[in-house]
Amino acid sequence: MAVGNVDFPEMNIVSGIKLGTSNAGLKQTERDDIVVMEMAKGSTCAGVFTQNAFCAAPVIIARDHLQQNPRWLLINSGNANAGTGKQGIADAEACCSSLASLVSGKGNEVLPFSTGVIGENLDVEKVETALPLAVANLKENGWEKAAKAIMTTDTFVKGASVVIELDGCPVTLTGISKGAGMIQPNMATMLGFVATDAKISQMVLKQCLSHAVEQSFNRITVDGDTSTNDACILMASGCSPAPRITLNSKNYKIFAKALLDVCKRLAELIVRDGEGATKLIRVCVEQAIDDKEAILVAKTIAHSPLVKTAFFASDPNWGRILAAVGRSGVERMDLDKVEIYLDDVCIVKNGGRADSYVEEQGQNVMNKEEILVRVVLARGNFTQEVLSCDLSYDYVRINAEYRT
Amino acid sequence: MAVGNVDFPEMNIVSGIKLGTSNAGLKQTERDDIVVMEMAKGSTCAGVFTQNAFCAAPVIIARDHLQQNPRWLLINSGNANAGTGKQGIADAEACCSSLASLVSGKGNEVLPFSTGVIGENLDVEKVETALPLAVANLKENGWEKAAKAIMTTDTFVKGASVVIELDGCPVTLTGISKGAGMIQPNMATMLGFVATDAKISQMVLKQCLSHAVEQSFNRITVDGDTSTNDACILMASGCSPAPRITLNSKNYKIFAKALLDVCKRLAELIVRDGEGATKLIRVCVEQAIDDKEAILVAKTIAHSPLVKTAFFASDPNWGRILAAVGRSGVERMDLDKVEIYLDDVCIVKNGGRADSYVEEQGQNVMNKEEILVRVVLARGNFTQEVLSCDLSYDYVRINAEYRT
Repeated sequence: MAVGNVDFPEMNIVSGIKLGTSNAGLKQTERDDIVVMEMAKGSTCAGVFTQNAFCAAPVIIARDHLQQNPRWLLINSGNANAGTGKQGIADAEACCSSLASLVSGKGNEVLPFSTGVIGENLDVEKVETALPLAVANLKENGWEKAAKAIMTTDTFVKGASVVIELDGCPVTLTGISKGAGMIQPNMATMLGFVATDAKISQMVLKQCLSHAVEQSFNRITVDGDTSTNDACILMASGCSPAPRITLNSKNYKIFAKALLDVCKRLAELIVRDGEGATKLIRVCVEQAIDDKEAILVAKTIAHSPLVKTAFFASDPNWGRILAAVGRSGVERMDLDKVEIYLDDVCIVKNGGRADSYVEEQGQNVMNKEEILVRVVLARGNFTQEVLSCDLSYDYVRINAEYRT
Repeated sequence: MAVGNVDFPEMNIVSGIKLGTSNAGLKQTERDDIVVMEMAKGSTCAGVFTQNAFCAAPVIIARDHLQQNPRWLLINSGNANAGTGKQGIADAEACCSSLASLVSGKGNEVLPFSTGVIGENLDVEKVETALPLAVANLKENGWEKAAKAIMTTDTFVKGASVVIELDGCPVTLTGISKGAGMIQPNMATMLGFVATDAKISQMVLKQCLSHAVEQSFNRITVDGDTSTNDACILMASGCSPAPRITLNSKNYKIFAKALLDVCKRLAELIVRDGEGATKLIRVCVEQAIDDKEAILVAKTIAHSPLVKTAFFASDPNWGRILAAVGRSGVERMDLDKVEIYLDDVCIVKNGGRADSYVEEQGQNVMNKEEILVRVVLARGNFTQEVLSCDLSYDYVRINAEYRT
């Protein structure tokens, strides 16, 4: 149930980055479930991973291999290889070694990623059997097939692509993502893979990615759960003729802005595919004392099951929003100064319902597919936005039936 | 959809405490929606209130009047008088004054309580019209009628009652509660009223109540939302011949234990009536470094929509429990030492699925109506338990339709 425009865009190829897919039968469907990505020699790579203490085996391995100038990514859907203990680590390493032997690389030059059911051992043999075809398929315009192969409960393919100019030379940023449930700030069951042909050191890449993820993937929520497997990877092939991007230069700022745009779009697509979602809700908190406070209030609203069910019902039950603001934990809030808006309609002012408010106005906003909840705290100058969706019957159905 | 045994018990009357009800038509049903409680002269009274910053007008008034040796409680259902600004305060005070004039008391000797829809002004005239009948009805065995009159989305009447002996003299504790949604630790949309005929000072009463609420009402969750109106009140008439209860005496301990039992039962009944609930889930976290850590882990599991939908589906998807433990925020957790049990069945050990575990065992537990999730952290000696329920289609239906 995609909310709004989720068309798959034209994906600009990234010189030096190839993608190949195949079907290992991990999902027991006809769909490809294995993706191999190859980076040209000399590429750099940065990653951000789940903060879940029970992180999955592939996350542990990928974090480690990231220090070894990796050249390949190996992604499987259908099985998360999480909660699998020592066997899981061995399985992830076996998959890396198998791919390495096919491409004349080393096992620690491969970053593994898995997404799917938690707690079942990965069928390494199936992966190994499917790998040769994925390697044979490697090509620069493999983005859409790769985006399809990493899907689990996703209902549509997610991609974003832009071309910018640095000193007159084109630089491409192209990325894909997956995720629909277990979505929460601090990385959710979401995977994101973004590639660029920019020349950029790993250190600079890492800073750029961390900043972009913080402002995009860490600002979305579907159900408040954080997965064991989340990862967002940024690869830079250096094949563009544009000059090397150095820290905090003019070109850095242009590049960082483009990366943020791509990550924001990839993150927003995940919320638009939120399990059971019928509405996209932007929660914007303004005039907070600092970013932390703005995010705290925004997330409290964005996570509230009562707020989310009211949106599903198109019910302008603003009391639930007010209650969420009130319990968010902000200390010494001056309730008489807080204002709450649904789109442009002021619903709360002077500690209660705004005098000007009539329910018809709220109803008109609630009937929309995309809604902005704006909370003005009147305490400071910081603004933050969190993206969420409503909570519907289908959310329960999807998650109650996921394994059956 | 009551889960398990929720029979309304025999309610022992509390000498010196009278209750009367009437129908003000606030809910547009035939059911009574007004309750008056009267305490004998010389009674003491303690209260614990919501921590929501946007607390409702009656909460603000009740907190204040509690300092004035109150003699009466006035409760209405159908309207929360929350998010109503200055008008809400004036309305709550008007109701107190009206009751006071009927019983020859003062307005500040009345504690007001409201529960129901947020953001609509209270119809004071309707309340005032209904008050004389409620006062005329005042009697010591009015508990069941009062329990009915404070219900909102509750599906059954909630009560608990015990008689203990202090130095050979009987002391009674009898209480009622309401609540089914917006239920979260730190007080939810729940109201609890407990009365005793013990002789006990307000200071001692307050300590006893705070401790009991912390271990009962603050250990339950239905949807993680904290209401604007929560309150739990403990009244002591002093009419029992038992000697005065002093702080930390032998009798204090007996009384405190009985109060905790009553509050635990009243809290558990709220979860058993959790909106849409089909299962009662006890999450017990053991061997934590301190109580705070145990509660943090227990609540993370108890709040997870993914865990709750898996319980609804009777799906032993233990990976979701493991993921919730992992993201709870406990630092330096040794995952290889963590053990997770469903009832007596060990599902997680050594960082992954227990070798002994077969899914049939988990399925057998999941098919039950009451389930214990036990997490052993192997870090310390502290244990805490949180009560929760599953997340079903009906939760969404009830909350999507509440105002329509």
